[in-house]
Amino acid sequence: MLSDSRNTPALRGPVAFLTDFGDIDPFVGQMKGVIAGIAPTANVIDLCHKVPPQRIDIAAMFLDGSREYFPTGTIFVAVVDPGVGTARRSIILNVARQFFVGPDNGIFFPLIRHATWSAVQIENPHLQLSQVSSTFHGRDVFAPAAGHLACGVSLESFGRKINALSPLVVSKAKRDGHTIQGEVSHIDSFGNAWTNITKAMLIEIGALIKREEVSIRVENTLINGLGDSYQTGRMNAPVAIINSVNFLEIAWPDGSASKNLGLKQGTDVQVEIR
Amino acid sequence: MLSDSRNTPALRGPVAFLTDFGDIDPFVGQMKGVIAGIAPTANVIDLCHKVPPQRIDIAAMFLDGSREYFPTGTIFVAVVDPGVGTARRSIILNVARQFFVGPDNGIFFPLIRHATWSAVQIENPHLQLSQVSSTFHGRDVFAPAAGHLACGVSLESFGRKINALSPLVVSKAKRDGHTIQGEVSHIDSFGNAWTNITKAMLIEIGALIKREEVSIRVENTLINGLGDSYQTGRMNAPVAIINSVNFLEIAWPDGSASKNLGLKQGTDVQVEIR
Amino acid sequence: MLSDSRNTPALRGPVAFLTDFGDIDPFVGQMKGVIAGIAPTANVIDLCHKVPPQRIDIAAMFLDGSREYFPTGTIFVAVVDPGVGTARRSIILNVARQFFVGPDNGIFFPLIRHATWSAVQIENPHLQLSQVSSTFHGRDVFAPAAGHLACGVSLESFGRKINALSPLVVSKAKRDGHTIQGEVSHIDSFGNAWTNITKAMLIEIGALIKREEVSIRVENTLINGLGDSYQTGRMNAPVAIINSVNFLEIAWPDGSASKNLGLKQGTDVQVEIR
Repeated sequence: MLSDSRNTPALRGPVAFLTDFGDIDPFVGQMKGVIAGIAPTANVIDLCHKVPPQRIDIAAMFLDGSREYFPTGTIFVAVVDPGVGTARRSIILNVARQFFVGPDNGIFFPLIRHATWSAVQIENPHLQLSQVSSTFHGRDVFAPAAGHLACGVSLESFGRKINALSPLVVSKAKRDGHTIQGEVSHIDSFGNAWTNITKAMLIEIGALIKREEVSIRVENTLINGLGDSYQTGRMNAPVAIINSVNFLEIAWPDGSASKNLGLKQGTDVQVEIR
Repeated sequence: MLSDSRNTPALRGPVAFLTDFGDIDPFVGQMKGVIAGIAPTANVIDLCHKVPPQRIDIAAMFLDGSREYFPTGTIFVAVVDPGVGTARRSIILNVARQFFVGPDNGIFFPLIRHATWSAVQIENPHLQLSQVSSTFHGRDVFAPAAGHLACGVSLESFGRKINALSPLVVSKAKRDGHTIQGEVSHIDSFGNAWTNITKAMLIEIGALIKREEVSIRVENTLINGLGDSYQTGRMNAPVAIINSVNFLEIAWPDGSASKNLGLKQGTDVQVEIR
Repeated sequence: MLSDSRNTPALRGPVAFLTDFGDIDPFVGQMKGVIAGIAPTANVIDLCHKVPPQRIDIAAMFLDGSREYFPTGTIFVAVVDPGVGTARRSIILNVARQFFVGPDNGIFFPLIRHATWSAVQIENPHLQLSQVSSTFHGRDVFAPAAGHLACGVSLESFGRKINALSPLVVSKAKRDGHTIQGEVSHIDSFGNAWTNITKAMLIEIGALIKREEVSIRVENTLINGLGDSYQTGRMNAPVAIINSVNFLEIAWPDGSASKNLGLKQGTDVQVEIR
């Protein structure tokens, strides 16, 4: 199986990694070494390695908000895996002509909401490293799977088909008439506060056609109006915009909204039409 | 236009990214996904993603000091872009047989001082993503431009020619006879203090032929002599050298000059010949 | 020599970088630019760039624990180099069909313990950048060497053969009967404490066949039993396991062992069979 897959001429697409491994250890480098041994010409891309430790929900959001920017055939390897070494399944998911390799712990659940999909369990020991540790399936199971997939190995070769994925438990924003109640889901590297309120929900309450009548309340601050860009706001004042992955975001032009407003993950956010 | 460019056989050179996006978000990964969709075999290199937020001057220094180490045909994508979403122009610059893609906010200004150059504005919507957000032109405008450039698309295809670039506003070191007055411009990851005093200025005052007669005053410390390497100095004492990008740098062998001397960005530095 | 090597059709293997350069400067990017100019199609992999500054011992551990995951022909470039600019030698080591490029300061010493090897000094100026700085041999000496190696240039072309490497000075764990005395060597990004106690030593005292009779004492904590995976332990209690690079590791399920137990690099660790 191995030698066959190495001779396959056409690669399927790039391999994109998403993990919570950070960058102070050689973990991500070892996964790339494994890929290089199986699929030497694969194009390997780092999507992000600083998902907050074991935050499956953030990883799922990063993946769901990023995949549309990657080409057909991309093989995503997502390793945020608090259950490594336990009975949780290792899977490969095929949805919308892209592949997703990782633990079945909810991380891929948002991807299958509105799409047809198929998935298999990774069982075939010939498509894993010969020694599989109990602590690092990213290197020993998921990276080899991605390498073999990149070489054209079929999904059926990996293991039996599965018919349901484990669900993802997340806090969702709620709508009540013209009001949305949500929370801060993530503080990015600029100090911008991402919320769990989607563009779709804002459209439902008419916020995009009445931008000036929107009020956003967060901590003790009231922001009037939904902005177009980071530069919409006045100096020394926060601005609310729809960000590049289509969530409501609280920003501060040339500063940190998180620091200036005291926002952190979990802070309540309320949107209404006046 | 898209399908033609994908069939172009010879790539122009690697694509090198310089941004202030950091690494806790999937922003850089999304840009690489876009490149992979347009120019699947392009060699993508991270020059640096931790330019201090919105510091156009530091990004310009990194770019100007690094480009000579990259081959002919390299396509640099520089996204330190506080004006994203406003009227500032998006441009492609061609200078010294390399390409530079990014906002026209001064970031490329140092590159054209002593060279002939040409540049165009990025206007053609067919060479951008179909939906361009107001907050993330790195992904929606600059990455696609770099991908198409890598495939051999001509500069003229992107938009109209421009005849001047926006200048870069920076504090420059000043020379007065045998004295140079400058400042610390950057603290690197070893705690070394980079200054805005160039090797060229040091040559002008004769510092390189009279190394032992040079005095460097920084905070309350006087450093006598211009060193050859980090190991020139005594233990537990600072050393002044010309660093690998040709600026005067204050270092501390096996320690942090920044911490030990209390240096930070903006600290005054004075050089004179005794 | 340069033009010949560029025409060599088959690349030897990927180039993998290990440094203490961090990621806030353009240093690593410049090294990659140099590689791209010499070996445009080389596959460049970041093993790790956050080795603690100038810790040759940690770099040696990362390299020795990672190389088996990389294919035959891999060219490792290891730059943790406190002696840059002094008389220490620059070398290329060939061991177990992989190459190692860097300073001869002990960083490669563990690799040659149980293997036949050969090595040369890097002397040929035609295989270095035309200007070699005294502060950045990673870019000016080691990256060019790796690029030329990737293109198939022979070891003999670089310089004279050498017969011994500089040793590595590290603290080793000690065994006395059924007791091992070691220490914490590294805290990883999850707060797990890696020790300098190897799986081989644990096998010697019979710890792997009597897992339940093993006691690990660290600071004021006693851990009973050697676990199988991070999930072996009870909630809110530490667990001791053999980690993915075959060292004893103290972890805390869903938390930081380092923070919860007050562990840091150098903390004593004692293992015994009851």
